[in-house]
Formats: sequence, structure tokens, C-alpha cells
Amino acid sequence: MLDRVLQTIDGRRDAALAALKDFLRIPSVSTKPDHKSDMLRCATWLADQLKFGGLSAEILPTKGHPVVVARNRHEPGRPTILFYGHYDVQPPEPLELWKTPPFEPTVRRDDAGHDAVFARGAVDDKGQVWCHVEAILAWQAHGGVPVNLVVLIEGEEEIGSEHLADFVRANKDKLRADLCLISDTNQFARGVPAITYGLRGLVYEEVKLTGPGHDLHSGMYGGAVPNPANVLCELLATLHKPDGSVNIPGFYDDVAKLTAEEKALWAKLPFDEPEFTRELKLTELSGERDYTTLERTWVRPTCDINGLTAGYQGPGAKTVIGSWASAKVSMRLVPNQDPQKIQAAFRKTIRERTPKNVKVEFTLEGHNALPVVVPIDTPATKLAAEALAVGFDKQPTFIRGGGTIPVVGLLKQELGLDTLLIGFGLPDDRVHSPNEKFDLDAFHAGTRTAAALYERLSKLPR
Amino acid sequence: MLDRVLQTIDGRRDAALAALKDFLRIPSVSTKPDHKSDMLRCATWLADQLKFGGLSAEILPTKGHPVVVARNRHEPGRPTILFYGHYDVQPPEPLELWKTPPFEPTVRRDDAGHDAVFARGAVDDKGQVWCHVEAILAWQAHGGVPVNLVVLIEGEEEIGSEHLADFVRANKDKLRADLCLISDTNQFARGVPAITYGLRGLVYEEVKLTGPGHDLHSGMYGGAVPNPANVLCELLATLHKPDGSVNIPGFYDDVAKLTAEEKALWAKLPFDEPEFTRELKLTELSGERDYTTLERTWVRPTCDINGLTAGYQGPGAKTVIGSWASAKVSMRLVPNQDPQKIQAAFRKTIRERTPKNVKVEFTLEGHNALPVVVPIDTPATKLAAEALAVGFDKQPTFIRGGGTIPVVGLLKQELGLDTLLIGFGLPDDRVHSPNEKFDLDAFHAGTRTAAALYERLSKLPR
Repeated sequence: MLDRVLQTIDGRRDAALAALKDFLRIPSVSTKPDHKSDMLRCATWLADQLKFGGLSAEILPTKGHPVVVARNRHEPGRPTILFYGHYDVQPPEPLELWKTPPFEPTVRRDDAGHDAVFARGAVDDKGQVWCHVEAILAWQAHGGVPVNLVVLIEGEEEIGSEHLADFVRANKDKLRADLCLISDTNQFARGVPAITYGLRGLVYEEVKLTGPGHDLHSGMYGGAVPNPANVLCELLATLHKPDGSVNIPGFYDDVAKLTAEEKALWAKLPFDEPEFTRELKLTELSGERDYTTLERTWVRPTCDINGLTAGYQGPGAKTVIGSWASAKVSMRLVPNQDPQKIQAAFRKTIRERTPKNVKVEFTLEGHNALPVVVPIDTPATKLAAEALAVGFDKQPTFIRGGGTIPVVGLLKQELGLDTLLIGFGLPDDRVHSPNEKFDLDAFHAGTRTAAALYERLSKLPR
Repeated sequence: MLDRVLQTIDGRRDAALAALKDFLRIPSVSTKPDHKSDMLRCATWLADQLKFGGLSAEILPTKGHPVVVARNRHEPGRPTILFYGHYDVQPPEPLELWKTPPFEPTVRRDDAGHDAVFARGAVDDKGQVWCHVEAILAWQAHGGVPVNLVVLIEGEEEIGSEHLADFVRANKDKLRADLCLISDTNQFARGVPAITYGLRGLVYEEVKLTGPGHDLHSGMYGGAVPNPANVLCELLATLHKPDGSVNIPGFYDDVAKLTAEEKALWAKLPFDEPEFTRELKLTELSGERDYTTLERTWVRPTCDINGLTAGYQGPGAKTVIGSWASAKVSMRLVPNQDPQKIQAAFRKTIRERTPKNVKVEFTLEGHNALPVVVPIDTPATKLAAEALAVGFDKQPTFIRGGGTIPVVGLLKQELGLDTLLIGFGLPDDRVHSPNEKFDLDAFHAGTRTAAALYERLSKLPR
């Protein structure tokens, strides 16, 4: 039956792309309050598509954006697969750098000469979700998906899955499964499909410093008052040591050592560092001493400033000492760091290093996510490798990722569920950046892989 | 005749305020390109008012915003006074902190219970310019201003008088005078009128760092690439030493030492440091070790960040490594620092301390201004002291200021002209900040002082 399903998928490439474009047109930016109605619209649209395939689909509220949950008719004796994805996207800014508008999906050649669809969310994660929906719809047209399926598509992944933990805890029965399946990661490179077996965790903080009660004339007051912008820079500069490591006491206490086995495995990966550097328009890379680029992004924790705001930002000059200054700072964590512990250490460090005459506040909460690593040598990964070979006509490799998918740690913690990360993106897809894209060949191979996955995973020992 | 002029002024308090409000309603923000037409409108309005008093007034173009030049009928044997002011104002942002809109001037009680007019430019410098225009108009109604008057009101003071140097050089004959008179400074405190005999100079730079060619996902790339926001903070943090001094090689080479005489003079000034601290809502002040607050703001050079822009600044979280980060940085200079030399030292220092894989650019030019200090013991200052005693009914004190009026150094350099700085503002006027105000009593006393100044200065030895 898989052959028939794959034939159907091969015959629907244009239709699948057209449906994905409809999905991409909805500006479901979860972090922005003024997109609240777009979020509900997007969830409704998605639930409708799943209903077309004969699935039952519900839009369930959370304290934030709603969650879409769908299922086929469950039959006893079959494994239950929880497919997770997210319909929310990152903010598209800076808009002026998009060649075509972020919510007007457009197909064109990318820099390497391959056709791709360009839009915010193209690959993260709408395009990859759509691989699965297409595969599910094709199976439903041919007797039904051969596993017991639970589809969970949330709207807050890009803001740390803030309300998903409560949702999962309140809906354990609905979500119970044998395995979780996620497509929100990458191939290692074009033509090198991969299974991702580790992800970094996340702590995201906003630090706001307040000095004088109002903005001041920098001539009349400069030199005699604490300037929050100066202090912010001094404070943030203390967060790294000259060797590139993070200078927060206790930060590395629980970091798992990289095994010789993994080090050897990664050394064999076809990673083209000069090309990687060139693609980023850099003359050379940066990072922690004594680690390779893959190690720096996959198994070493980081601390990066994601935003700075202080004083006057308009054109020209304003001689002002701003009353406040703020920074968005995120830390990527690796096994076995504990987000709560790292967050506390970060706050303690910032507080201790802030001068007494400047007030410090932490104004963002709820973006913590656990780092994860899963065993490679399981029946599920073997079945997944077979499915990737069907979809991409090539044996997959095993990699880790630098990004974060908060739900992975959450499902392990709450439901004891292991996750299979089968990603279809490419490293140059400009995820979170202007001109995000999804390669059309990857879209098709991903859809075929998803179809094969549901067939292979029906053989999962229970 | 001065008595008659003062009577006229006393009888026109409401009319003077109404005219000032018209002046304040024009949003003449020089730094913003989209206010270009407001600038011309403001210059035209101002020239018209001077024409009402029988002065000849011209609107003269520069490469930037136009300059208003007016004069009375000059008579041989009288001293020529160049009155300088500016009709441009600082940007009003952040708008949400204004109790009443910045360009809808409103009279109300200030925090200390005194009536004031609140608007952007109320005291800096439209209100103080209007003191002089009112005094001039009153004199013109009583036989004419008793000196040869040249009025020069420019539109680029708040952006460093960028095009005024060229204008002055091209119009030396028009501007030739015996003395320059400016009201763009403060009283020392309420009821303590003052003559300002020194000002700081200025260098204002925008530093932009560029790392990767586009914004990056902080998970996929974090730890392996130079983050311009991190680098910017590290770079700017190096600009100060732990003792609060500026860490740029050569920065202090030419700084004039404070004399024991001045130190003694300032120690006697009624400076209420606890009240100053409280007014700023600070628990304690900051600054260079071993200097008092007045010394820190009047005779010590500074380096302050006036703006920071990097990465994502909207609500919530975005896990991005921005492609670029920028800072607006200004340095206040004191005698005998040379702005060109300091600017070069700043750029050299920044360039040397920037990692090789990050590009640095300096994107603002033309905001350099010389520091100035003038002798106290001259016939002009004695006559000015008498005028202040007439206007405020109190003997003035001698102070320096931390701000910058670029024209002062320029006129000295180009025309050999000394400047008299007679300011009517109060320290809590929130210059450059939301809720800028001009005290109505100060407005009236300032107008009376201006009238007396033109009478006293008619006795200036030539």
C-alpha cells in the first residue's frame, strides 16, 4: 500500500505546494499580541485540513494560543504515534531585507540554483508540518494511516512553548502514545538526510536596567550619573571570558563531556567549514577555544545577546542619557544542564555585578527548555532510517542540533515519551532570518519520508 | 528709557506667553528628515515676528536647515551685539512619557509648585530666544534697541551646528560684531541667576558593527559565529576604567587642570547634592573618583552611550543573532581637548579593539564642537551682571556648564568673538527629556534681563 500512497504524493506536488502557500499566508507570529486573531485563524485552517482527511480535529484553548489536536480512528494492537509540530512562526523583521514579502509565499531559485518557496515559516515549521499532513491525507485516501495517530500542533513553539506544559499535564490521556515524531530540524546537508538525536535547551531572559528617573541631557548630567546604557554594556561584557567561554559561576558544572565515539562520528561528517563561513559572509568563525564548529553548536552551551534597546535610535544625533536600557539574552543549554538552575545563576550573577545605584529587572519569563539527547540504537531509529532511505533514496546519518524544541524535554518528563527528530530543512534555509525558504525537493522527499514513516512505525514493537 | 521698556514687558506677560506658544507649536526637530518643511516654516515664522518690530530679517539657506538673520538700523559709534539662538529642538521621544503632547504647549504647575509652560523646546532654546525677541520688540516700540544688533537664529544646534561653520565663513561681514550674546544655559538654581563662563565641547559618533551577512538562528549558529551585539557590549565596556575614567589612549593628554581658585569658587555655590540626587530618582550618584559632581559635569570629559540598537526589540522573545549592532556614543570635552584629535583617538581605539571578523563603520559625522572658557573679569561680564540684577533683582553668580553650544567656539575661531552666556533655565527643566518646561517667572525675569542687557551693553567700550 505504501507504493500507492507514494504515487498519490508524487501526483500531488503542485497541489501540496498550493496548500502550503495557503498555510504560509497566515501571519501567525506568536510573540506579537496584535497577531492574536491570526493565530486562531491559523489553528482553524489547520484543523479544517485535517478534517478533510477524515480525522477528528479539535482546537483546544490554552492560556496562550490554541493547540490543534487531531486523531484517526484508533485500533487496538497498533502502536500510537504522537506527531508534534507548530503553526506559529518567528517575527519577520527586518522587513526591508526580504526579497519578497514574508507572508506572500513565492517560489524562485535560491542562491544555489534550486527551486524553493520563500516565506516566514516556510521550513520552520509549516513546510515540515505540511509534509506530514500531505502524507496523512494520502494514507487516508488509501485505507487510512496504518498507526494510531495523535496530531498535536501548537502555536507557541517560537515563544518557548510557554503554556504547553500545563496543556500536556491536563491532557495526558489524549496524548498518550508510544513515540513522538517531530519534523522541525534539518538534513545535515543537501542530499545528506539525517536523524537528529540531540538538541540544546534554552533559557531566555530580558534584562532591564533603570538609572535616573527620566531621560537626561548628556551635557548637563554626563559624568555624574549612572548611564544605564554604559552599565548594560559593562554588565553584558562580563558574561564571556577571553577564551570565549561563558563567565557565570556554575554555568559548566553539569555539562556532559563529549564522548570519543561521538567526536569520531562527527569528524566523518561532510562538513565544509570554508563554505559555511563564506555563506555567512564572514572572514573567520568565532567561538570557544579547543572546540570544532559542530561541537560549538551541538554540545557546548552559549550565551548570546538577541536584542539591545537603549536611548535614542532614530536618525542623526540625540545627546541623551536614557533613563533605562534593556537586553534580550538567551542561553543555549546542553545535557545535563538544568534550565532553572542556569536561570537562577544568570540572575544572581547579573544582580551581583550591577552597581547599587542602578535598578535591575528581569521582565521575560517562561522560556526555559530542557536540553535533550536520545539513544541512537533503538528499533524506532532503525525504522526511521529505513523511511528516510525510501523518501530520500539515501541512507541517513546521525547528527545533533543546536536549536531547541521545548516539547521534547516536556514529553519525556510528563509522558515518558521518546522523540524521533526527522528533519527536512537545509542548513542555508535562513530559519529565523529574512528570506526563509523551504527547498521544493526537500518538501517532496520529506512528504515521501513521512508517508514511509507511518508505514514503518506500524511495525514498532510495543 | 529702560524703565519704559520694562513697563511694556511687565504689561505683556500674557501676550509674550501666547507668542511663545505659537513658536513652540511648530515641531522643528532638526535631526529628522521628515521635519524639513517644519524647519522652514519655523524660520519663516520667526523672521516675520522680527519684521513686526521693524527689523530687517532674512531667511538664508545653508546646506542643511536655513538660518534667520535680522538687524536693526545700525548707527556709527555704537557697539555691535550678535545675538545667537536656535529654533530647532531635540526629538520628543519617548512620546508616551509626556503628560501633555510635546508640540501642544501647556501651562501647568511643575512638581515644585511653580507655573511653567511644558513643550519640547520650551527652554532649549525657543523660550530663551523669545525672551530676547520680546525685549527687542519692546525696545523697538520705544525708540529702538540702543545697540547695533545682529540676530542670528540657526536651525541645527541640536545636530551639532553642522553647516553653521560654512555659513559663518561665507557671511563674515554680515556677522561682524563686538560681542556675542547667547541665552541657552541655566540659572544655577531657582533665584540664583548666573553667568556661564565655560562649556564643554562635543564629539558624537555612531558605531556600527557587522558580523554575519544576515540574521541567524541563535540555536543553529550560536557559539560558532561572532555575535555583533556581544562584541558591541564588550567593545563599549572597554571605554571606561574601574575608577570611572575614560579608557582611550591620549584622552586626557590636553585636559586643563582645575585651578584652586575655581575649586574654591564652586565650593561656595549653593549646590544641594541630596536634592539633585533625589530629583533624578537615584539612590546615589556615579562618576570619576576624586571629583565633585560640579567638577564631573563642568570640567571633566566624559564618554556616554546615547543609543543602542541590536537584534530584536519587539515584545516577547526572538532567538536571533542579528547581523549588525550599533551604538551612538558622545564625548563631552573640556579645555584644552581638541575634538578632531579625540575623534581620531576614539576611532583608532575602537578599530584596534574590534575582532578581525567583525566589520566596524562610523556613520555619523560633523558633530564636533570645541570646549570653551571665557574670562570672568571683563567689562562685558560686569555689564551683564548689572543687567541680571535688574532682571532677577539679585546679584548673579559665575558658573560653568556641562552642555555644548557649538557656535561659541566657532565664533571665537572665525570672528575672534567672545561670547556672553546668560541663561534663564532651571536645572530641573528636563532639557532633552520628556516634559521639558520653561518656568514662567524665569521667562519674565529673562525678558527683563534681556531688555536691560541691550541697554547696559550699549556702554560696552569698543
